[in-house]
Amino acid sequence: MAGTGSCIFCDIVAGNSEASVVYRDDLVTAFMDIRPVNSGHTLVIPNIHSTGLEKIDESTGGRMFSIACRISEAMPSAGIKREGLNLFLADGVIAGQTVFHAHLHVLPRHTGDPFAIDIERLERGIPSRTELDNQARVLAGMLARTRRR
Amino acid sequence: MAGTGSCIFCDIVAGNSEASVVYRDDLVTAFMDIRPVNSGHTLVIPNIHSTGLEKIDESTGGRMFSIACRISEAMPSAGIKREGLNLFLADGVIAGQTVFHAHLHVLPRHTGDPFAIDIERLERGIPSRTELDNQARVLAGMLARTRRR
Repeated sequence: MAGTGSCIFCDIVAGNSEASVVYRDDLVTAFMDIRPVNSGHTLVIPNIHSTGLEKIDESTGGRMFSIACRISEAMPSAGIKREGLNLFLADGVIAGQTVFHAHLHVLPRHTGDPFAIDIERLERGIPSRTELDNQARVLAGMLARTRRR
Repeated sequence: MAGTGSCIFCDIVAGNSEASVVYRDDLVTAFMDIRPVNSGHTLVIPNIHSTGLEKIDESTGGRMFSIACRISEAMPSAGIKREGLNLFLADGVIAGQTVFHAHLHVLPRHTGDPFAIDIERLERGIPSRTELDNQARVLAGMLARTRRR
Protein backbone atom coordinates (compact mmCIF):
# COMPACT_ATOMS: atom_id res chain seq x y z
CA MET A 1 0.00 0.00 0.00
CA ALA A 2 3.03 2.27 -0.27
CA GLY A 3 2.26 5.70 -1.59
CA THR A 4 -1.47 5.37 -2.09
CA GLY A 5 -2.07 8.58 -0.17
CA SER A 6 -4.16 6.83 2.43
CA CYS A 7 -1.34 6.42 4.93
CA ILE A 8 1.08 9.20 5.78
CA PHE A 9 3.85 6.76 6.72
CA CYS A 10 3.44 4.81 3.47
CA ASP A 11 3.77 8.17 1.71
CA ILE A 12 7.02 8.79 3.58
CA VAL A 13 8.35 5.35 2.58
CA ALA A 14 7.40 6.08 -1.04
CA GLY A 15 9.09 9.46 -0.91
CA ASN A 16 5.79 11.25 -1.49
CA SER A 17 5.66 13.05 1.82
CA GLU A 18 8.21 15.25 3.56
CA ALA A 19 10.25 13.60 6.30
CA SER A 20 13.61 14.02 7.97
CA VAL A 21 14.94 10.57 7.15
CA VAL A 22 17.69 9.10 9.31
CA TYR A 23 17.91 5.68 7.69
CA ARG A 24 16.26 3.55 5.05
CA ASP A 25 16.84 0.12 3.59
CA ASP A 26 14.78 -2.60 1.93
CA LEU A 27 12.78 -3.37 5.07
CA VAL A 28 12.57 -0.30 7.30
CA THR A 29 12.67 3.50 7.32
CA ALA A 30 13.60 5.73 10.26
CA PHE A 31 12.82 9.44 10.53
CA MET A 32 12.50 12.19 13.10
CA ASP A 33 9.16 12.47 14.91
CA ILE A 34 7.66 15.83 13.93
CA ARG A 35 6.23 16.28 17.42
CA PRO A 36 9.08 14.98 19.54
CA VAL A 37 8.60 14.27 23.21
CA ASN A 38 12.31 15.00 23.56
CA SER A 39 14.77 16.33 21.02
CA GLY A 40 16.03 13.41 18.93
CA HIS A 41 12.83 11.36 19.18
CA THR A 42 12.93 9.04 16.17
CA LEU A 43 10.46 6.57 14.64
CA VAL A 44 11.35 3.28 12.95
CA ILE A 45 8.71 1.81 10.66
CA PRO A 46 8.31 -1.22 8.40
CA ASN A 47 8.28 -0.24 4.72
CA ILE A 48 5.35 -2.56 4.07
CA HIS A 49 2.15 -1.29 5.61
CA SER A 50 1.04 -2.99 8.80
CA THR A 51 -1.47 -1.29 11.06
CA GLY A 52 -0.16 -3.02 14.15
CA LEU A 53 2.21 -5.90 14.74
CA GLU A 54 0.23 -8.44 12.73
CA LYS A 55 2.00 -8.14 9.39
CA ILE A 56 5.54 -7.52 10.61
CA ASP A 57 7.58 -10.59 9.78
CA GLU A 58 10.58 -11.71 11.84
CA SER A 59 13.18 -10.19 9.51
CA THR A 60 11.46 -6.82 9.48
CA GLY A 61 10.84 -6.82 13.23
CA GLY A 62 14.46 -7.72 13.81
CA ARG A 63 15.62 -4.93 11.55
CA MET A 64 13.33 -2.43 13.29
CA PHE A 65 14.77 -3.42 16.66
CA SER A 66 18.35 -3.43 15.40
CA ILE A 67 18.09 -0.02 13.72
CA ALA A 68 16.45 1.38 16.86
CA CYS A 69 19.49 0.13 18.84
CA ARG A 70 21.91 1.69 16.38
CA ILE A 71 20.07 5.01 16.46
CA SER A 72 20.15 4.90 20.26
CA GLU A 73 23.90 4.30 20.17
CA ALA A 74 24.45 7.12 17.68
CA MET A 75 22.46 9.71 19.63
CA PRO A 76 25.14 10.98 22.04
CA SER A 77 27.67 11.40 19.21
CA ALA A 78 25.01 13.27 17.26
CA GLY A 79 24.63 15.77 20.09
CA ILE A 80 21.35 14.35 21.36
CA LYS A 81 20.86 14.34 25.11
CA ARG A 82 20.41 10.71 26.09
CA GLU A 83 20.77 9.72 29.74
CA GLY A 84 18.52 6.74 29.08
CA LEU A 85 16.21 5.50 26.37
CA ASN A 86 12.79 4.02 25.85
CA LEU A 87 11.63 1.85 23.01
CA PHE A 88 7.88 2.03 22.72
CA LEU A 89 5.27 0.72 20.33
CA ALA A 90 1.52 1.19 20.57
CA ASP A 91 -0.75 -1.28 18.81
CA GLY A 92 -4.35 -0.10 18.92
CA VAL A 93 -6.15 3.06 20.01
CA ILE A 94 -6.43 1.84 23.59
CA ALA A 95 -2.63 1.46 23.65
CA GLY A 96 -2.14 5.04 22.49
CA GLN A 97 -1.69 4.50 18.75
CA THR A 98 -2.54 7.58 16.69
CA VAL A 99 -0.95 6.82 13.30
CA PHE A 100 -2.12 3.48 12.00
CA HIS A 101 1.07 2.25 10.42
CA ALA A 102 3.16 0.45 13.04
CA HIS A 103 6.03 2.53 14.40
CA LEU A 104 8.66 1.94 17.04
CA HIS A 105 9.47 5.04 19.06
CA VAL A 106 13.14 5.56 19.89
CA LEU A 107 12.88 8.06 22.70
CA PRO A 108 15.98 9.52 24.36
CA ARG A 109 15.35 10.35 28.00
CA HIS A 110 16.92 12.84 30.35
CA THR A 111 16.39 14.17 33.86
CA GLY A 112 13.34 16.37 34.13
CA ASP A 113 11.94 15.53 30.71
CA PRO A 114 8.16 15.59 30.12
CA PHE A 115 7.63 11.86 29.66
CA ALA A 116 6.26 9.80 32.51
CA ILE A 117 4.53 6.49 32.85
CA ASP A 118 1.72 6.45 35.30
CA ILE A 119 0.84 3.05 36.75
CA GLU A 120 -1.17 3.99 39.78
CA ARG A 121 -2.45 0.58 40.59
CA LEU A 122 0.67 -1.46 40.01
CA GLU A 123 0.54 -2.74 43.56
CA ARG A 124 -3.01 -4.04 43.41
CA GLY A 125 -3.72 -7.70 42.99
CA ILE A 126 -0.32 -9.31 42.62
CA PRO A 127 -1.12 -12.79 41.28
CA SER A 128 0.02 -15.98 42.93
CA ARG A 129 2.71 -18.17 41.39
CA THR A 130 0.02 -20.73 40.60
CA GLU A 131 -1.97 -18.17 38.65
CA LEU A 132 1.15 -17.06 36.75
CA ASP A 133 2.15 -20.65 36.04
CA ASN A 134 -1.32 -21.41 34.68
CA GLN A 135 -1.24 -18.37 32.46
CA ALA A 136 2.26 -19.24 31.22
CA ARG A 137 1.19 -22.81 30.45
CA VAL A 138 -1.82 -21.70 28.40
CA LEU A 139 0.19 -19.06 26.54
CA ALA A 140 2.97 -21.56 25.87
CA GLY A 141 0.42 -23.99 24.47
CA MET A 142 -0.98 -21.36 22.11
CA LEU A 143 2.53 -20.33 21.03
CA ALA A 144 3.44 -23.89 20.20
CA ARG A 145 0.54 -23.95 17.74
CA THR A 146 1.60 -20.80 15.92
CA ARG A 147 4.43 -20.35 13.54
CA ARG A 148 5.46 -16.85 12.71
CA ARG A 149 5.81 -15.82 9.09
CA MET B 1 27.00 -14.17 33.28
CA ALA B 2 24.08 -16.59 33.38
CA GLY B 3 23.37 -18.01 36.78
CA THR B 4 26.02 -16.20 38.77
CA GLY B 5 23.46 -15.09 41.30
CA SER B 6 24.12 -11.44 40.63
CA CYS B 7 21.23 -11.00 38.20
CA ILE B 8 17.75 -12.33 38.84
CA PHE B 9 16.98 -12.60 35.12
CA CYS B 10 20.23 -14.50 34.45
CA ASP B 11 19.14 -16.84 37.23
CA ILE B 12 15.80 -17.37 35.48
CA VAL B 13 17.56 -18.13 32.19
CA ALA B 14 19.81 -20.61 33.99
CA GLY B 15 16.81 -22.23 35.68
CA ASN B 16 18.07 -21.23 39.12
CA SER B 17 15.20 -18.93 39.97
CA GLU B 18 11.46 -19.51 39.89
CA ALA B 19 9.60 -18.12 36.89
CA SER B 20 6.44 -18.83 34.94
CA VAL B 21 8.11 -19.43 31.60
CA VAL B 22 6.11 -18.96 28.41
CA TYR B 23 8.86 -19.58 25.91
CA ARG B 24 12.56 -20.25 25.70
CA ASP B 25 15.02 -20.97 22.92
CA ASP B 26 18.73 -20.50 22.29
CA LEU B 27 18.51 -16.70 22.24
CA VAL B 28 15.59 -15.52 24.36
CA THR B 29 13.36 -16.41 27.31
CA ALA B 30 9.83 -15.13 27.95
CA PHE B 31 8.03 -15.31 31.29
CA MET B 32 5.14 -13.72 33.16
CA ASP B 33 5.88 -10.45 34.97
CA ILE B 34 5.41 -11.15 38.68
CA ARG B 35 3.95 -7.67 39.22
CA PRO B 36 1.81 -7.33 36.12
CA VAL B 37 0.35 -3.98 35.13
CA ASN B 38 -2.42 -5.98 33.48
CA SER B 39 -3.12 -9.69 33.58
CA GLY B 40 -0.99 -11.39 30.94
CA HIS B 41 1.88 -8.92 31.16
CA THR B 42 4.91 -10.82 29.83
CA LEU B 43 8.64 -10.07 29.61
CA VAL B 44 10.97 -11.17 26.82
CA ILE B 45 14.68 -11.13 27.63
CA PRO B 46 17.95 -12.01 25.90
CA ASN B 47 19.54 -15.13 27.39
CA ILE B 48 22.94 -13.45 27.38
CA HIS B 49 23.19 -10.71 29.96
CA SER B 50 22.95 -7.17 28.65
CA THR B 51 22.13 -4.34 31.03
CA GLY B 52 20.56 -2.25 28.29
CA LEU B 53 20.47 -2.47 24.52
CA GLU B 54 24.23 -2.35 24.06
CA LYS B 55 25.00 -6.07 23.90
CA ILE B 56 21.87 -7.27 22.12
CA ASP B 57 22.92 -8.39 18.65
CA GLU B 58 20.61 -8.22 15.64
CA SER B 59 19.57 -11.89 15.77
CA THR B 60 18.68 -11.68 19.45
CA GLY B 61 16.86 -8.37 19.07
CA GLY B 62 14.93 -9.77 16.14
CA ARG B 63 13.98 -12.85 18.11
CA MET B 64 12.88 -10.74 21.08
CA PHE B 65 10.64 -8.67 18.82
CA SER B 66 9.31 -11.70 16.98
CA ILE B 67 8.48 -13.64 20.14
CA ALA B 68 6.81 -10.55 21.59
CA CYS B 69 4.62 -10.43 18.46
CA ARG B 70 3.74 -14.10 18.75
CA ILE B 71 2.88 -13.74 22.43
CA SER B 72 0.68 -10.77 21.57
CA GLU B 73 -1.11 -12.84 18.92
CA ALA B 74 -1.59 -15.74 21.32
CA MET B 75 -3.03 -13.66 24.15
CA PRO B 76 -6.72 -13.57 23.13
CA SER B 77 -6.80 -17.34 22.53
CA ALA B 78 -5.16 -17.79 25.92
CA GLY B 79 -8.01 -15.91 27.59
CA ILE B 80 -6.04 -12.72 28.14
CA LYS B 81 -7.93 -9.47 27.69
CA ARG B 82 -6.16 -7.62 24.90
CA GLU B 83 -7.92 -4.72 23.20
CA GLY B 84 -4.55 -3.29 22.28
CA LEU B 85 -0.92 -3.82 23.17
CA ASN B 86 2.21 -1.96 24.09
CA LEU B 87 5.77 -3.05 23.60
CA PHE B 88 8.02 -1.18 25.98
CA LEU B 89 11.67 -1.31 26.91
CA ALA B 90 13.45 0.92 29.42
CA ASP B 91 17.20 1.37 29.12
CA GLY B 92 18.55 3.24 32.13
CA VAL B 93 17.18 4.41 35.46
CA ILE B 94 15.95 7.67 33.97
CA ALA B 95 13.91 5.65 31.46
CA GLY B 96 12.27 3.64 34.22
CA GLN B 97 14.49 0.56 34.25
CA THR B 98 14.41 -1.28 37.58
CA VAL B 99 15.91 -4.69 36.71
CA PHE B 100 19.26 -4.31 34.99
CA HIS B 101 19.01 -7.09 32.46
CA ALA B 102 17.29 -5.80 29.32
CA HIS B 103 13.64 -6.83 29.05
CA LEU B 104 10.91 -6.11 26.53
CA HIS B 105 7.51 -5.67 28.14
CA VAL B 106 4.60 -7.21 26.24
CA LEU B 107 1.69 -5.42 27.82
CA PRO B 108 -1.90 -6.20 26.86
CA ARG B 109 -4.12 -3.14 27.19
CA HIS B 110 -7.83 -2.75 27.80
CA THR B 111 -10.30 0.02 28.48
CA GLY B 112 -9.95 1.46 31.95
CA ASP B 113 -6.67 -0.24 32.74
CA PRO B 114 -4.16 1.43 35.11
CA PHE B 115 -1.46 2.20 32.55
CA ALA B 116 -1.13 5.70 31.19
CA ILE B 117 1.54 7.71 29.51
CA ASP B 118 1.77 11.27 30.64
CA ILE B 119 3.38 13.68 28.21
CA GLU B 120 2.29 17.03 29.53
CA ARG B 121 4.48 19.15 27.41
CA LEU B 122 4.14 17.36 24.11
CA GLU B 123 2.88 20.54 22.46
CA ARG B 124 5.78 22.72 23.54
CA GLY B 125 8.52 23.64 21.13
CA ILE B 126 7.67 21.75 17.96
CA PRO B 127 10.89 21.95 15.94
CA SER B 128 11.10 23.34 12.42
CA ARG B 129 11.67 21.09 9.43
CA THR B 130 15.15 22.58 9.12
CA GLU B 131 15.97 21.58 12.68
CA LEU B 132 14.64 18.06 12.10
CA ASP B 133 16.53 17.76 8.82
CA ASN B 134 19.75 18.81 10.50
CA GLN B 135 19.27 16.32 13.29
CA ALA B 136 18.46 13.54 10.80
CA ARG B 137 21.55 14.37 8.75
CA VAL B 138 23.86 14.21 11.76
CA LEU B 139 22.29 10.99 13.04
CA ALA B 140 22.47 9.43 9.57
CA GLY B 141 26.15 10.33 9.41
CA MET B 142 26.83 8.67 12.74
CA LEU B 143 24.84 5.59 11.72
CA ALA B 144 26.82 5.22 8.54
CA ARG B 145 29.96 4.94 10.66
CA THR B 146 28.62 2.17 12.88
CA ARG B 147 28.11 -1.43 12.06
CA ARG B 148 25.98 -3.44 14.41
CA ARG B 149 27.34 -6.71 15.74
